[in-house]
Amino acid sequence: MSMPGTTDHLTSWHDTATRRSIVEFVERAVADVPVEERVATFDNDGTLWCEKPMPIQGDFILRRLFEMADADPELRDRQPWKAAYERDARWLDDVMTEHYAGDDTKVRTLLGGVLAAYAGISVDEFEAKADRFLRTAEHPTLGRGYLECAYAPMVELLGYLEANGFSNYIASGGGRDFMRPITQDVYGIPRERVIGSATALDYVGDSRGGTITHKAEADYLDDGPQKPVRIWSRTGRRPLLAAGNSNGDIPMLDFTWHEDKPFLPLLLLHDDGDREFDYTSGAEQALEKAAASGWTVVSIKQDWATVF
Amino acid sequence: MSMPGTTDHLTSWHDTATRRSIVEFVERAVADVPVEERVATFDNDGTLWCEKPMPIQGDFILRRLFEMADADPELRDRQPWKAAYERDARWLDDVMTEHYAGDDTKVRTLLGGVLAAYAGISVDEFEAKADRFLRTAEHPTLGRGYLECAYAPMVELLGYLEANGFSNYIASGGGRDFMRPITQDVYGIPRERVIGSATALDYVGDSRGGTITHKAEADYLDDGPQKPVRIWSRTGRRPLLAAGNSNGDIPMLDFTWHEDKPFLPLLLLHDDGDREFDYTSGAEQALEKAAASGWTVVSIKQDWATVF
Repeated sequence: MSMPGTTDHLTSWHDTATRRSIVEFVERAVADVPVEERVATFDNDGTLWCEKPMPIQGDFILRRLFEMADADPELRDRQPWKAAYERDARWLDDVMTEHYAGDDTKVRTLLGGVLAAYAGISVDEFEAKADRFLRTAEHPTLGRGYLECAYAPMVELLGYLEANGFSNYIASGGGRDFMRPITQDVYGIPRERVIGSATALDYVGDSRGGTITHKAEADYLDDGPQKPVRIWSRTGRRPLLAAGNSNGDIPMLDFTWHEDKPFLPLLLLHDDGDREFDYTSGAEQALEKAAASGWTVVSIKQDWATVF
Repeated sequence: MSMPGTTDHLTSWHDTATRRSIVEFVERAVADVPVEERVATFDNDGTLWCEKPMPIQGDFILRRLFEMADADPELRDRQPWKAAYERDARWLDDVMTEHYAGDDTKVRTLLGGVLAAYAGISVDEFEAKADRFLRTAEHPTLGRGYLECAYAPMVELLGYLEANGFSNYIASGGGRDFMRPITQDVYGIPRERVIGSATALDYVGDSRGGTITHKAEADYLDDGPQKPVRIWSRTGRRPLLAAGNSNGDIPMLDFTWHEDKPFLPLLLLHDDGDREFDYTSGAEQALEKAAASGWTVVSIKQDWATVF
């Protein structure tokens, strides 16, 4: 048990300039900012937990698409079910490659499948499925369960912030209702502080409390400029600290700027192929922006003593 | 200062069956339900504060429409600016009368004006305007400032629930960003727990943190079946207690039903024309439903020793 206000939470961090900038920021925030304004927001995939070789939710969705194609042969000739059924990693890779090159044709095809995959399911059933998957499935290459793919130094950072009066939120492009069943256990973040992408929902009443179900349409995708909008909508605040790792996090990190209060935009750099993965794809502009704006870059290789 | 867990918060309530059902519910919830699941949701207009002769936000919007028409003569021939400029209470009354009769033509006209009234304004500017209005404007007939139009027994109920581990949320058809500047001071409800109707927002980045502005379109109207959807989206929970006063609150009150936990749907009845207002218009189905489902009806006349 760490003492609130001390930095002994950050034991998986090397004593580098990065760690010192975090501690300095937190000490200034505690001194200068009322507790209710101490808000921190975190991207999830690639920031709090591993996103390679594919986002954890991607695995969850592919298994569901496989299951659908297995039950209905007609789906096997249609994307994205075809790729899921044939375990066609190439098609799935192309989705992201073409997305980064500006062509979202395959993204829309994939999204159509994703929305169809859970259309009509109740939020309770969806949560039970996500919960079961997350607590039992294994990462394909790291030799650990998905819930053990959270980064120990980031979990420590969350604890350190909380001990210093911060309210931590997850502002992820991943699905809000997918993450909610495990965020308290893994990150100490309660479900009401999970912001993320969402499908549109429908409520139908009955004499037993009614049911909320997933519709086959997106409510919003919590990425890029939607992140500040969703953070404001949920918290009514501009965060003092935001952490991300990709181009879609740029607006959220920009949004931390304060004229008269300490603020800290953190960008995680995946540069450790031995202990995790080594990639900058999808983070090119974010890294340029970090250099130009003086954001604090967290190097997994240099700043973290332990990764998991 | 009241002791947590005691009922001496509820001093403005008569010792009636209603008050006893509240106390009994809270005691059962404390005994049986983990603290993180103790969620309570409250409608605002007509439930936490007075909504007659018109919702407080209606006055705020009419003043803005008047201001716009004053600056631009062409608007004076167009509804809803015409009604605002001519202080035509009849047209405004007709909006609600026709709405309850199933004709939303005028509602849409009014909504168009409402959305145009703040299009392009930043969320910070909007908040400053709402804050100034709410802290200075007076109720037209009650002889008190709008912030003194909150019901003392309901504010006590919020405090009693909070002292017993509940998280209170406002789930109002009124504007989320309109209420946020005053909910902590008036109700002890922090801004992140304010759910309400919202206009769509836009984020544009710059080197000073960027700006979120109101667009001229609704994001959603938090009423009727949207209330359970928005409560779920924000909290990830089904509330144990919900309080409302009109037909638009029926789904939220239904949504409190639990098979295995105590729950309490509360419907406020405006039956005290001497101390507040006496009306059931817009609450007819809710009152029928309350009688059929055994909801607890709070009579202002009989259950409240003090109203304000």
